[in-house]
Order: sequence, then structure tokens, then C-alpha cells
Amino acid sequence: MNTSTDYDIIVIGAGHAGVEAALAAARMARRTLIVTLSLDNIAMMPCNPSVGGPGKSHLVREIDALGGEMGIAADRASIQRRLLNTGKGPAVHSLRMQSDKFLYQRIMKETVENTANLDVRQLLVTQLLTEGNAEGTRVTGVLCETGERITARAVILATGTYLRGRIILGETIYDSGPNGQRPAMALSDSLRALGLKLMRFKTGTPARVDRRTLDLTKTSVQEGDPTAPAFSFLTTEMRAEQTPCYLTYTNEATHEVIRANLHRAPMANGVIEGVGPRYCPSVETKIARFPDKERHQLFLEPEGLHTNEIYVQGMSTSLPTDVQEAFLTTIPGLEHARIMRPGYAIEYDCLDPLQLTPTLAVKHIAGLYSAGQANGTSGYEEAAAQGLIAGINAAREITGEEPLILRRSDGYIGVLIDDLVTKGTDEPYRMMTSRAEYRLILRQDNADLRLTPMGRSIGLVSDERWARFTAKRDAIEETLRLLDCTKLSPSAETEARLAEAGLQPLRVPMTLRALLSREGRYDVLASLFDLPALAADVKEEVEIMARYDGYIKKQQEQIARMERLESRRIPEGLDYSAITSLRLEAAEKLAAIRPRSIGQAARISGVSPADISVLLVYLEKERRTQ
Amino acid sequence: MNTSTDYDIIVIGAGHAGVEAALAAARMARRTLIVTLSLDNIAMMPCNPSVGGPGKSHLVREIDALGGEMGIAADRASIQRRLLNTGKGPAVHSLRMQSDKFLYQRIMKETVENTANLDVRQLLVTQLLTEGNAEGTRVTGVLCETGERITARAVILATGTYLRGRIILGETIYDSGPNGQRPAMALSDSLRALGLKLMRFKTGTPARVDRRTLDLTKTSVQEGDPTAPAFSFLTTEMRAEQTPCYLTYTNEATHEVIRANLHRAPMANGVIEGVGPRYCPSVETKIARFPDKERHQLFLEPEGLHTNEIYVQGMSTSLPTDVQEAFLTTIPGLEHARIMRPGYAIEYDCLDPLQLTPTLAVKHIAGLYSAGQANGTSGYEEAAAQGLIAGINAAREITGEEPLILRRSDGYIGVLIDDLVTKGTDEPYRMMTSRAEYRLILRQDNADLRLTPMGRSIGLVSDERWARFTAKRDAIEETLRLLDCTKLSPSAETEARLAEAGLQPLRVPMTLRALLSREGRYDVLASLFDLPALAADVKEEVEIMARYDGYIKKQQEQIARMERLESRRIPEGLDYSAITSLRLEAAEKLAAIRPRSIGQAARISGVSPADISVLLVYLEKERRTQ
Repeated sequence: MNTSTDYDIIVIGAGHAGVEAALAAARMARRTLIVTLSLDNIAMMPCNPSVGGPGKSHLVREIDALGGEMGIAADRASIQRRLLNTGKGPAVHSLRMQSDKFLYQRIMKETVENTANLDVRQLLVTQLLTEGNAEGTRVTGVLCETGERITARAVILATGTYLRGRIILGETIYDSGPNGQRPAMALSDSLRALGLKLMRFKTGTPARVDRRTLDLTKTSVQEGDPTAPAFSFLTTEMRAEQTPCYLTYTNEATHEVIRANLHRAPMANGVIEGVGPRYCPSVETKIARFPDKERHQLFLEPEGLHTNEIYVQGMSTSLPTDVQEAFLTTIPGLEHARIMRPGYAIEYDCLDPLQLTPTLAVKHIAGLYSAGQANGTSGYEEAAAQGLIAGINAAREITGEEPLILRRSDGYIGVLIDDLVTKGTDEPYRMMTSRAEYRLILRQDNADLRLTPMGRSIGLVSDERWARFTAKRDAIEETLRLLDCTKLSPSAETEARLAEAGLQPLRVPMTLRALLSREGRYDVLASLFDLPALAADVKEEVEIMARYDGYIKKQQEQIARMERLESRRIPEGLDYSAITSLRLEAAEKLAAIRPRSIGQAARISGVSPADISVLLVYLEKERRTQ
Repeated sequence: MNTSTDYDIIVIGAGHAGVEAALAAARMARRTLIVTLSLDNIAMMPCNPSVGGPGKSHLVREIDALGGEMGIAADRASIQRRLLNTGKGPAVHSLRMQSDKFLYQRIMKETVENTANLDVRQLLVTQLLTEGNAEGTRVTGVLCETGERITARAVILATGTYLRGRIILGETIYDSGPNGQRPAMALSDSLRALGLKLMRFKTGTPARVDRRTLDLTKTSVQEGDPTAPAFSFLTTEMRAEQTPCYLTYTNEATHEVIRANLHRAPMANGVIEGVGPRYCPSVETKIARFPDKERHQLFLEPEGLHTNEIYVQGMSTSLPTDVQEAFLTTIPGLEHARIMRPGYAIEYDCLDPLQLTPTLAVKHIAGLYSAGQANGTSGYEEAAAQGLIAGINAAREITGEEPLILRRSDGYIGVLIDDLVTKGTDEPYRMMTSRAEYRLILRQDNADLRLTPMGRSIGLVSDERWARFTAKRDAIEETLRLLDCTKLSPSAETEARLAEAGLQPLRVPMTLRALLSREGRYDVLASLFDLPALAADVKEEVEIMARYDGYIKKQQEQIARMERLESRRIPEGLDYSAITSLRLEAAEKLAAIRPRSIGQAARISGVSPADISVLLVYLEKERRTQ
């Protein structure tokens, strides 16, 4: 390994993306440096004090399965947990935890500081250092505000909302990172000068109100669920005591205040240039977009165990403080609410992710990777997932190993990155279960079965995790074998036994697995047929695999069919302009995005099935010529 | 009480001064608002992770005795404690604690947030609101960055280093509060526009280095002292486990690096305009000022229990990062030290404290108070002490009560404030035991005996504190009575008993108190003469009072003599220019500072004993005329 550089990898930014990137690279034994504008804000949660939720919990479980850190930290900092969507199928079950955000930061800071091969420094990067040759531009390090040059073989951008960050709070506007932090103004220019296309996005956060000024008796209490599992497959014990949240609603009076002040909303009056997150809109956007909706729900979430600050989820806004006060106090329970921190919007520069490969490398600058909000996503979990992949791939590139690219059928992480680099995004991208086409396979419960072997081969899965994983996997396989092998016939004795347990008769011979598929609950069968007791996680998998067997198989066939397209690789340097029969728009899009496979090419917006046929014919002809 | 204002008192800034001011005012039942630029930085320790030390521990004990918060928080966040100067007399015994600075902040934030009558808001004040009439200017509230106006009957400035803050790190210079926080630029102009004279001071902080890169075997371990007491008279239990610090030294190589780079030192090359703290100089200043000194000691202090950041005490600097790295790595144990945060200097505006009365009110703006670094001091303890007094006096002014003014013989707080408002300061003022003339009376051990009755009458001493205090005071008095009443004669039996215990014979009749004065240790006498066992704090007082009886009496006589001068009050509106025989310089100084008493007048620099005589004669004549 080349050691003439200061580091193998420099990660710019220590938010949720940067932290995972740096931990992954360092754990893969690359000499890694993570830099941040403030050591006090490592893994800061500038918005929701929570981790997980639909789609996002899948990401957290996958990060964990691969050997990432977010799940572990979220478990340790958890003050409440709930399993959402339990009324629906297991595909959309989603874990969500409230975090003590101060504790989350402390835990993550401690982990980062104690990771071997990882240095942590507080400094401001103003420029990427690069060198150019005939083959193109390569990143060689970073230039710091102080004039210091730090060299590296790869650099990962994880700049969050700091790139030319601008806070907008009603008529008050100033350059700033989140929560009043210093912004990174110069780095943005440096990226532009390197030919990168930057977009301008915005996000927002609601006010934090003083718990002492709320009348929580007017809200519905949302208790935690003591049976909800942990995020991490490593966590064996969770904090027993859980802290409640509170549900309340806006009403016509709330909406009236907002409507009457829309002319002062930076979203509406043109002050905000950036594009906001569709699925996490400001309350003024909600009121404007859904004029007929009579109320919007909102959750009051504690920011931690040692503070009275309450996060008003659902009330993100950039309206002036006086308007925030006016509309909040129309809400049941918040009549006397006092704002401790006002809500605000923040605008920032981010990369158009179409400039990235599925490894999260920047296409035209060798050695440069990018992850998180810097790639146009929103959410801590989306950021962490990308950070992990960027860290892994930067590390593997250095040693000449094949990159890790998760397919859409491997996990939500695959869906996330494929969406970004294939379709791009014109608004902050948020993960949702509806974005995944193989939802029944990509469950949060089986993230380890899907990804831990991959994490092991990469070198991120510890012996402890691997031992725990293999024990679970073996137990599942053994149980399924046992259920497959045990055949029941509709004898009088068996039927009587089933009837006694309140189950329907067999009528035809069937395996125990088929019976489990019909009845659903392993424990019922276990007591009837004297089967071994199972750990909860093993039982869950066995039940799902038995119950959804047919659907799962069907989805696996779908995946196999798609896989044929995914495995039809497109040569890297293919000259699309030479394919004369290709429509100009398709040729341009393909040339810009440079898909790695026919499958990816087919998902590009503006590329039609007819274009794909032309491409396939061309590739086949080329193959034969060679 | 006038309730037409939003608040009785607004405190600007939530550092060590602001927090004590706000807590005191709110606990005295005044409707109080504390505002800060970031709720995440309440009671931040931007420099040393420690509280106390010579002179400063006296302040902490006095704050505590009056009902302030610093001692309680310091005890709870303590990770190491030591009693310094135990080889010297009790007057200079000083407690010093290492703090987990993150925990200190969390504790103080939680306390502030849960104090009745106290609202906490994150906002930036850009201007003081005032109204003028024939009698002068009165503050009426604050104008916020967002345009919001918040009215109050009094405002306390506790702006720390945020007023036009400017960070200087070698050639890198930017507007900033400490540690990259937003500075308060506009408020400074507002104060100037009100006719206030601002000074420009600077302070600095050393680098934080990564514990993992240190070889601590090359340093001397400084363990904590399990017998060291708590700061607060309320604390009954301290964390048993203590964390060590480490002592090492600079050497010729260190000094050589610094000398070779002095041209890059902003202190030396004219970039820094502000005046730095004499007793906490940057390392480059030390090298320049003491060229013959072969080494300077430095302590490696952990910043907390959950971080590897190590504070390098004694190496405060504004030299560029590369120079910091170069000189740190010349130090034994730091050969491979890696900087996590570089040291830096910060310049800021502060008030010339000669504009303040001994109540910490700004003389020519009614209702405006000022405390802490904003008054030209340095140190958390100095700030907290002033905050407490400013909070108390703002609260008392509102209800028309007499202000609380501690005399120089009441406590170090009295010394501190009298020094500031009488002599002013042309550099950041730091408390030292040598600044107090009545050191033997103003011990840290008897701060409660001196001040808790005062705190009780003000309304800041809780029933719990008062009960504990009176029990201690009564036990001391009872014991002293017993010792006074018990007379020993040099009988054969007594002399034998003394000899057996290894003590000198009596020779003449004496009281037990006299014997204690001679022998020093109560426990020895207790076992010989069957005296009751005493609590440690009671015993300490009894021993000191017996042992230093003569000296204490002498100092009390001194105080009584001075008190005659202190109680010679000078009429508030006295026209010094009318005293024709007064020297012009003296008349000007007296008119500017407007001393409250002859004692204070005598301490003004530029006012001679002859001037005081002239003044006394004039006042006497005036008195007779009336």
C-alpha cells in the first residue's frame, strides 16, 4: 500500500454519513482521517431526535448487518422504541426509536475516537487537491483553511448541509451550517471549479418548545413498546424504561394563522431557492398543498432525558418566530407553549448524484467519493447507508479490490444508491418502502441473512457478530429442515390433537412446514408436536419463511429474471454516439449516466424499452465481432 | 411589581456569568429570561476542563455559600479533585477539580431549564432597547436579530467573548465566538452607540491532543486526592473514582521551535489588538517574556470521561497549527501527539468596568447590569461570581430593595468587584489570593460562615442549606465554648497524660482552647480529655479558629479600622469640580468612578492620601453646613 500520502482516506464531515464512512475505512485497516468543523457536533442530530421508521429502519438494519455503527448507537441512545406497521405484512414492519440526541452524539464521538487507524481533527476544508493527467483528474488530498495540505489516496465528501449553508428564519437570513454552526463556503467553489454540477436543496426543522409550558393531558400519550426489538443484531439488552411521546393535531385556527402569514414565508415569497423534501414538507407547504385537509397530526418528542426541549414533529417551518409562536399556540396542549429554539430552513449545495457511479465514486474525479445529504438525500439513515458504502468502496479501490455494489434485490441500500445514480433526484431523496420492488425479500428482519456474509467477506463483520449470525442462520436452516422432513398424515389421532388445539383438520397429508405456513405460529405447533423451543429471532424468520413461502419464491423468480438484465454488463467506455440507430435523447442520457448494466440502463428516465432493444442488438453485434 | 413588561430581567448570554445571574434572579421570583446563541452551549467550558484553584476556589465557595450553582455543578461533574497549597496556611488552601466538561454543561443546562420563573431561549440580541428622559437613559429590553422586541425592567450583559468575537489561529482569522460559535457583532455597536466605552481584550486556549497518541509513561501522574472536600456545602457525596492528570515540561527544543516562529505569532506580529491575560499567557508570550527559563510545566488534563481529547494546560497559543504540532512534539510524552483541535486566540469587546457601580450596574444606563468577561475578567469562577451579584442586584433593584455589595472584608467576591469598579483593569482580570488583604479571614473553608446568612436574607439560601449551615455553625460555637470553659492546670496527672500522648507539658494553667491553639489537632485532645467527636468541617473550623486566633483578631481589628473609612459614605451626586482645593486629576478620576465611600475613593489609582484629606475636610464642612 502506498504510504507516501498522509492518509489513505480523508472523510470531510462527521455527520451520519461521514462517521460510517470513516469507521468502515478505518476498520478495513486503511489509514483514515475524519475532519469536522466542530468536534462537539460529531453525529449531531440537527432535526428529529429519532432513528428508523418505514424504509429507514430497513436501512439501519442493513447498515448493521454489514458491520456499520448506526444501529448500535441508536440502541444505546434509545429512550423509546416502537415497531410500526405491525398490522401489515412483515415486509413493511419498521422499527422506530426515539433517541437522547445528546447521548447519541456522545456515544458516536467516543466510538469514532477509539477506532484504530482513525484520526479525528477539527478543521475546515476549503479546497480539494487534485492532479491531472491524460487519463483525467485525480483527487490527492485537501487544503485546509489554515493553509495546511493533507494528502490522501481517496477523499469522501460527507458535507451534509454545510456547503454554502444558509439559514432562513422568516426575514432573518445568514450563512450558517445547521443549528448556527460555521458553514463551508469555499469548498463549494472548489467543487464547482472541478466541473462538478451542484444543486441547491433545502431542508427545515420545527421549533423546540419547553416541556414545562405544555399541557400534555390534552394530547394522546404514545408509549414505547417493551417487546419491540433492537436495531442491531448485536444488541442483547435494551434500556427497560421508556419515555413517552405525545400526539396532537393542528386545526383550522392553526391553518388560518399560517395562511394569513404566507406572504412572510420564505418558501412562498421567493427567498428560498433550494428545493425542499417532498415527504417532509414544512407546515406552510402542507397547508398550501392540502387546503382541504382539516388537521395534520404532530408528535411531541423529547430531545433527550436531561432536557425540557420538545421537538414538534410535523411542524417544520421557516416562518418568522412570531408566526411560529402564533400557530403553535393554537394547538391542543400547546396553548401556552414557549419556543426554546425556533424552527428554520437551511439551504445548501449538494452534488447531482447522476455524477456518481453505483460505488458512490464521482465519475470524472478519480479517488473522490460522496455520501449523504451531499448527494441530495435527506435523513440520517440514508446518509449513514451511503457513508458506509462510500467508505467501503474507497477502501477497496485503494487496494485494487472489486467495489461493493448492492443490487436492488440485495437491500434498500441497493435501491437507494441505484435510484440516486440512475434516476438522479430533483428534491431531497427520502427512502420509503414503496421505492423497493422486492419488498417481501428486503425485510428488516432478514437484513443479516441478506448482508452479513457480504460484510464478513469485506472485513467489517467482527468474529462476535459472525458467530451470532451463523448460529442464527444454522438454527433457522435446521428448523426448516426439521419442518420439511416431518410429514403428518390426517390420522384420527393427529386430527384430534389439532382439533383440541382449536386448529382446522389436516384433511390431506402435509409437512409440518406446510402446516406452519397455514397456521402461522410456530409455538402452537411446537407444543402439539414436541418441537424444540426457538429464540425469538429464529422463530420470526421460520414463521415468515413458512408463511410467505409462495410469495417469496415468486419474488425470487422475478429477481432471477431481472438478474439476467443486471448481469448484461455494458463496457465501461462505450461510445453511445456511435450507435447510430439510438435516439439522441437516449444516447445523451446513457452517455451522461454510463450505466453498468442493461438493467440499470433500462431504469434511466428518458431511455425507452425500444432504446434498450437497440442497445442490446448493438452489444450482441459487438460481442460477435470481437 | 410592574408586569407590563415581558420579563423583569433578561440575561444576555448563558455562560458561567449568565447562568448564575439568571438562576439568582429567577430563584428570587423575578420573571427572568436567559437568551443564548445556542442552547447546546449553556455553561460551556471553552478553555480548561476544570474549576477552582488558588483564589478561584474561594470564589466558588462564596458563590455556593450565597446560594449560587457553580459549586454544585462542579461537584457533580468532577472527575478529579485536589486540595492545593496544603503545605501553607489555611488562608491559601485551594480546591481544584477537573470536570467532565460535557457533563458540566448537561447538568447546568438541566438545572437552568428546570428553574421556576426562568425561560430559556435561543436567539441573537442585536440591540439594547432604551428610553431617555431628563434623568437619563433607561434600558427597556432587547431587540433580536429576528426583529422581535422583548421588554424587561432590567437587562444583564453576560456576553463573554462573543461581542465582536474574532478567532485568530496563525494566519487564519475569522469572526467567531469561542469554538467556532456565531459571534455577536451588532450588539457591540449598540453598546457603543449608548455611550459605553468598550475595550478590546483577548484570551486563548491550547490545542487538544489525542490521548491515544501520548506516551504517558514519560510524564508524572497526578492522582486525585480522595480526602479532598467538595466545593458545595450541600454536597454530601463525591464520585469515588478519580481520573488522573499528567505533568510534563517544555524544554529548549520546544522554546527553539517557538522562537523560530515568533514572526508568525499573531501576538507578536501585530495581528492581535486585544490585551491578553497576564497570568494565563500564551506559551509564545512566556517564551518571549522569560527567555532564561529552561522549562515550563504543563498539565495534560482529560476533557471528560467519554473522550480522548486531552487539554494541554500551559500551552495556550495562537501560533499556526503546523507550529503547534512542531512544538508539542518536542515535549516528553507528546513526541507523537496528534492535535484534535488546534489552540487559538479570541479577541472580543468588553466594558471598561470603571463604568460600573459596585452593584455591577452600568452607571449611566438605568436597569443595565454587566457581568463576567464582558467586564474584563478572565475565568469561569470570576464570571460566575459577578453573574450571581448582578442577578441579585438586578432583582433587588426591581423591587426597590437595597443592593447587595460585598465588602473587601466579606469575601473574594467583594475584592473582585471592588478592584474592577474602583481600579478598572487594562488586561483580563484574574482572581488571586494575593489580591485580598484579609486573606486569613477570607478562607475557602469559612465561606459559608461569612456569607450564608447574607444569602439567606436575600432569599437564595434554601431551607436545606440553611439547616445544614446552622447546624454546623452551632456545633462550632458549642465546641469553642466547651474548649474555652474547660480549664486545665498543670497537675501531675495532666502532665503525665500529655507526656504519654507525646505532647509538651502544660507548665501553666490554660484552657483547652489554648492547648488546641498550641497543639493544633482536635482529635488528639479529644482522646485525652474525652471530648465529643466532631464532623470534619466543624473540626476544621474549630482548629483554625483556635490555632490562628491571634492573627484573626488582628485582622479583624484592621478590618474594623478600614470599616470606618468604608462607612464614610460620599453623597451620590457630589460635584468634585466644586472642590477647588482638589487636584484636577483626582477630581476627574473621582468624578468618573464616583466612589461610594472614602475607603473606595482611597483605592482609586491617581487619588493620593492628600486628595483624600482634602475630600474629608470638604465633606465634613458640607455636613456641618447642612
